[in-house]
Amino acid sequence: MPENTQAPRRPGLDAASARIRSAVRSALSERPAAAENATPAPVFVALSGGPDSLALADALAFEARAADIPAGAIVIDHGLQDGSAVVAERAAEVARGLGLDPVVVRRVSVGSEGGPEAAAREARYVALREIAAEQGADTVLLGHTRDDQAETVLLGLARGSGARSLAGMAPRSGIFARPLLGIDRHDTVASCAAREHTPWIDPHNFDHSYARVRVRETVLPLLEAELGPGIVRALARTADQAREDADAFDDMIEEFIEEIVEHAEAGIAVSVQALAANPAALRNRIIRLVAHGEFGVSLERSHTLEIAELVTRWRGQGPLDVPGIRVHRENGLIVFTAADAIK
Amino acid sequence: MPENTQAPRRPGLDAASARIRSAVRSALSERPAAAENATPAPVFVALSGGPDSLALADALAFEARAADIPAGAIVIDHGLQDGSAVVAERAAEVARGLGLDPVVVRRVSVGSEGGPEAAAREARYVALREIAAEQGADTVLLGHTRDDQAETVLLGLARGSGARSLAGMAPRSGIFARPLLGIDRHDTVASCAAREHTPWIDPHNFDHSYARVRVRETVLPLLEAELGPGIVRALARTADQAREDADAFDDMIEEFIEEIVEHAEAGIAVSVQALAANPAALRNRIIRLVAHGEFGVSLERSHTLEIAELVTRWRGQGPLDVPGIRVHRENGLIVFTAADAIK
Repeated sequence: MPENTQAPRRPGLDAASARIRSAVRSALSERPAAAENATPAPVFVALSGGPDSLALADALAFEARAADIPAGAIVIDHGLQDGSAVVAERAAEVARGLGLDPVVVRRVSVGSEGGPEAAAREARYVALREIAAEQGADTVLLGHTRDDQAETVLLGLARGSGARSLAGMAPRSGIFARPLLGIDRHDTVASCAAREHTPWIDPHNFDHSYARVRVRETVLPLLEAELGPGIVRALARTADQAREDADAFDDMIEEFIEEIVEHAEAGIAVSVQALAANPAALRNRIIRLVAHGEFGVSLERSHTLEIAELVTRWRGQGPLDVPGIRVHRENGLIVFTAADAIK
Repeated sequence: MPENTQAPRRPGLDAASARIRSAVRSALSERPAAAENATPAPVFVALSGGPDSLALADALAFEARAADIPAGAIVIDHGLQDGSAVVAERAAEVARGLGLDPVVVRRVSVGSEGGPEAAAREARYVALREIAAEQGADTVLLGHTRDDQAETVLLGLARGSGARSLAGMAPRSGIFARPLLGIDRHDTVASCAAREHTPWIDPHNFDHSYARVRVRETVLPLLEAELGPGIVRALARTADQAREDADAFDDMIEEFIEEIVEHAEAGIAVSVQALAANPAALRNRIIRLVAHGEFGVSLERSHTLEIAELVTRWRGQGPLDVPGIRVHRENGLIVFTAADAIK
């Protein structure tokens, strides 16, 4: 008998909102366990006022009340657009109307490092962490949907740097939870309509100078047209599987990395034997990890492979110079030295 | 001192042909070692007459002569288009002109299983293997370029079934070698022009009823326009890394799969403890492997995850029915039974 995978419908509740509530309910049930008899920690939703976070806030207000969990909202005003304070206050007003309490509105100042999208994201996450700490919250819900996940995978694919760059966003990462990663964006829009909320539409969402907007507005619709409507789900599955793979390799390496590296005066050395004994997937990750952890260098794949050949195709190669690092083989070790340490 | 990664130029040889010859030279040097004093086994190129395989045949003729390796060509006539025998004979004529010997032309009959592309590919590979065996060849070179690899990754992405579906084509797989996976398609076209070969242009390459043609003609150009011209290389890197990852997991599982499964009368059982001790990336692969190996079932991810929850979220669930298989937990084992074995 196949399981009934439909979310239970409440009478009068639209299907989209029912799916969103079910997803929020699961996320609430998966929070870190509190100490026995402790007051339950409050849960917050990060609310922009857009359809995703608004539908999420609506569902959180309902589910938290049902489960007797205190729930509030955080509205970040990035101060990047005229009238952003008004938009933030309007979102806060909706949150209060839903019974979320407290509702924290905070203005952040956005730097410029890594471009406008990255800088705004960085400022937002810093503020969300701060406020969660101030409020003693263990969980902040974020409104990313399956469509956001698909966009993230395509942006990672364009970087071409392996499973981690395809892994997208995790359902849970530190205090952040993303209950809507299995929900389509049209469901958040439909839920807002059914629940009579009017979402704010961010004009940045249509600014084609952002790569993410081009992916959303141009690339994904074409992929759907040419490769079939299942592409968003396929990309989201790719993210889940890539994240599993990347996590597994990270865990494996963490288990033995300390045993196979030696810190030396001028740098760091890794055992040839250990590198040779591991499959390429692990060997190349260890090389990248050492370069990044010790020298802050993100190796390009071609350089990673050249270094690996000191192990796999040893024919007496001389020292290799890759940006920031010199690498050579000596006494059964692959030795990494900072380029600026070379006399 | 950075390494000189340019292919050595021969006087008078164009850069594209030099890159292709260099790639063929590497592939020839990586063939399986022959027994000492044995006559060297011949190498063949699979030649369609299109620019990729024509440039490859030209380079093979040169490099094999230089290395004193016997080299021939195989031309497969799929018989799918009017005049295909003429096209095949013209390609064979070019191969003979290059000094490749023998040149084997074979007409195959293409079935219909899996669609016209898959059926033609299947018939082609079967014939190539047969002819290689008849000729005592250990290597058949195929003309797939970096662009073909990028297309394959995008088609795999649309399936969304993990690292193996993103892994694209291997540089070496059985008797088949693909020296041009690091060569751009425009280099094969340029090489043909410079070497004064006139490639055959397959009209199927412009038939948009093929998903691969839509990817080549529509999807990739848009991705380049919206995400930058590095997308083909990024996709090819993704393939290499995904293949490494998938190979590593396959090897790990192969090491212990026999120890953790038990064959029972009605099916097969896997130890709960072993599944629980492995990371999700391995656990889910083991579940898929058992379902496929024992019952010929390709599990959807949602079903794989439901089965995994018998291990990771055990709360006394009853038997799960997934297409073709019933799965339940009993005495520390996850037991898989054929659905049709259930009374």
